[in-house]
Amino acid sequence: MPELRRDPVVGRWVIISTERSRRPSDFASPPVHPLSAGPCAFCPGQESRTPEEILAVRGPGSLPNGPGWQVRVVPNKFPALRIEGELEPAGDGIYDRMNGIGAHEVIIETPDHTASLADLSAPHVAVVLEAWRQRMIDLQKDTRFEYVSVFKNHGEAAGASLEHPHSQLIATPIVPMMVEQELEGALHHFRIKKRCIWCDVIRREMQGKGRRSGRLILAEEGMVALCPYAPRFPFETWILPEAHFSSFEDAEGVDPGAVARILREVLRRMDRVLGAPAWNLSLHSAPLKTPILDHFHWHLEVIPKLTKVAGFEWGTGFFINPTPPEEAAKYLREGVPRAT
Amino acid sequence: MPELRRDPVVGRWVIISTERSRRPSDFASPPVHPLSAGPCAFCPGQESRTPEEILAVRGPGSLPNGPGWQVRVVPNKFPALRIEGELEPAGDGIYDRMNGIGAHEVIIETPDHTASLADLSAPHVAVVLEAWRQRMIDLQKDTRFEYVSVFKNHGEAAGASLEHPHSQLIATPIVPMMVEQELEGALHHFRIKKRCIWCDVIRREMQGKGRRSGRLILAEEGMVALCPYAPRFPFETWILPEAHFSSFEDAEGVDPGAVARILREVLRRMDRVLGAPAWNLSLHSAPLKTPILDHFHWHLEVIPKLTKVAGFEWGTGFFINPTPPEEAAKYLREGVPRAT
Repeated sequence: MPELRRDPVVGRWVIISTERSRRPSDFASPPVHPLSAGPCAFCPGQESRTPEEILAVRGPGSLPNGPGWQVRVVPNKFPALRIEGELEPAGDGIYDRMNGIGAHEVIIETPDHTASLADLSAPHVAVVLEAWRQRMIDLQKDTRFEYVSVFKNHGEAAGASLEHPHSQLIATPIVPMMVEQELEGALHHFRIKKRCIWCDVIRREMQGKGRRSGRLILAEEGMVALCPYAPRFPFETWILPEAHFSSFEDAEGVDPGAVARILREVLRRMDRVLGAPAWNLSLHSAPLKTPILDHFHWHLEVIPKLTKVAGFEWGTGFFINPTPPEEAAKYLREGVPRAT
Repeated sequence: MPELRRDPVVGRWVIISTERSRRPSDFASPPVHPLSAGPCAFCPGQESRTPEEILAVRGPGSLPNGPGWQVRVVPNKFPALRIEGELEPAGDGIYDRMNGIGAHEVIIETPDHTASLADLSAPHVAVVLEAWRQRMIDLQKDTRFEYVSVFKNHGEAAGASLEHPHSQLIATPIVPMMVEQELEGALHHFRIKKRCIWCDVIRREMQGKGRRSGRLILAEEGMVALCPYAPRFPFETWILPEAHFSSFEDAEGVDPGAVARILREVLRRMDRVLGAPAWNLSLHSAPLKTPILDHFHWHLEVIPKLTKVAGFEWGTGFFINPTPPEEAAKYLREGVPRAT
């Protein structure tokens, strides 16, 4: 029997469609492999082909905008938003607009064109995450911005237009709608219960070491990876700190190495279980101008690209998910390669 | 300069990205053409391969579940929700769920396997729309259902798994999140202004026969097609009755033939301008159990599948649209084939 489930944060109902139940081997997603060996504009020695670097983690003696870096952050050459200018919000009858001010940066994760985030060592992944954090802290000083979205598209099917491993960030003068919905749902819960909804989720999912719900993937070093109760997509995974922290960039109390290790482990298991699928990752953190929030809990969402989003989803916001999260978590817990 | 724009109904901000501006010829979408000539389970003579028909428009003397039909409605053989049973909502700590009760039907639009909705005659399209309407009226009698979503996926890239022309409907015991958001935003506008927001949009977009905004595509026989102010997707198009009606199935005052003619014309122009792209269509109508609403206005949304939705969109609900709606509307107004 299919089931309707409600996400406890944003209130979105999804259909867990058992009639169409699909196991890892049912998803015919072509594996993501680099097609070329480089060099591309993100490769070492090609630094002049990108705008000048904003941040880089470099070996001793190496020069800015030259080779010798481990991680490098540059402005996006084709930015969705522009960094220059004053914000000019304007009304036009029933409509509202604003000039497209923002920052759009690329975090080049490794000099190795053919690597993937999951292939990097855990300390190297920690350097990538630290670059995200540094850029968020820096952009927070720009009073024009309300939010920094950090995200990554891995594989062409997930929207990556360049195969050299990179993540991106976009700073916007608006808090994005989905974050607003999360904030609103979480505040509603907090007002009634005096508890953070994600803390409640973590407590619930960890009961009996995850045996009760079956949705826990792993919990290590203060970090938790789980399949959410009402996921939009098969094998959708959330990664959260077990203790309450509203901002990712406010690192106190969370071991950056632990975040890197659990993220890398989840990605490696997805590769094994689902055959190196394309995926999207997004960081959800509190808006830049809010104080520390008792009701928001930063987290990473990883979505393997396995299904097509179609008219029903676009028209309703209702998602049909053919893989129950209990089943997805079971595979990701065991991390066993898919049957072929 | 890119621009941020806010949808006046749901309040969603989008980025109109002029730096990445794309004209019809920039979208490399493979044209949708039937790959086989049939017969498939939806072809005439194959009626026994589908569940028994719920509704059919048939020639005189033809028998149910045999050939001789023009449009045929059958239950989906692999339904996302099941029709049998009582609704059983249940709480489970912080979570809410419900057994997956609903209706999932397929509207087979023509006996011709190789046709597309845009190829059919306008009177035939009217018969398809009338089948939607009849099914909505019938499902409204089932007190378990709150909403009927009618949608269509055209082409594999848009999620169609069968190429024989068909639309679908899913009746749910929940009003979908996006409809709730539309209702909420529209009610807010109505409370302040005492006007329907979509009526305001239509009035604004039709000023000077569309010359002022440049987003009107065409207005004929009481129906309007336009590119919305803050579209999520390039060439996203809305089709609405010019006069205020909250429910599609409540046909009084709207000429069903006029709806068919404008929908067919928009689809034909998209085919010409964009080279027969894949697309999704969804019908937005008032929930089944509400009375006639002064603040909701039924409409069709057509979204050609031209871009990939990626990590930024999934993480934030913020969409980056590379084609300003004024430019999209210009192409669709002229209906000129794309440059090759």
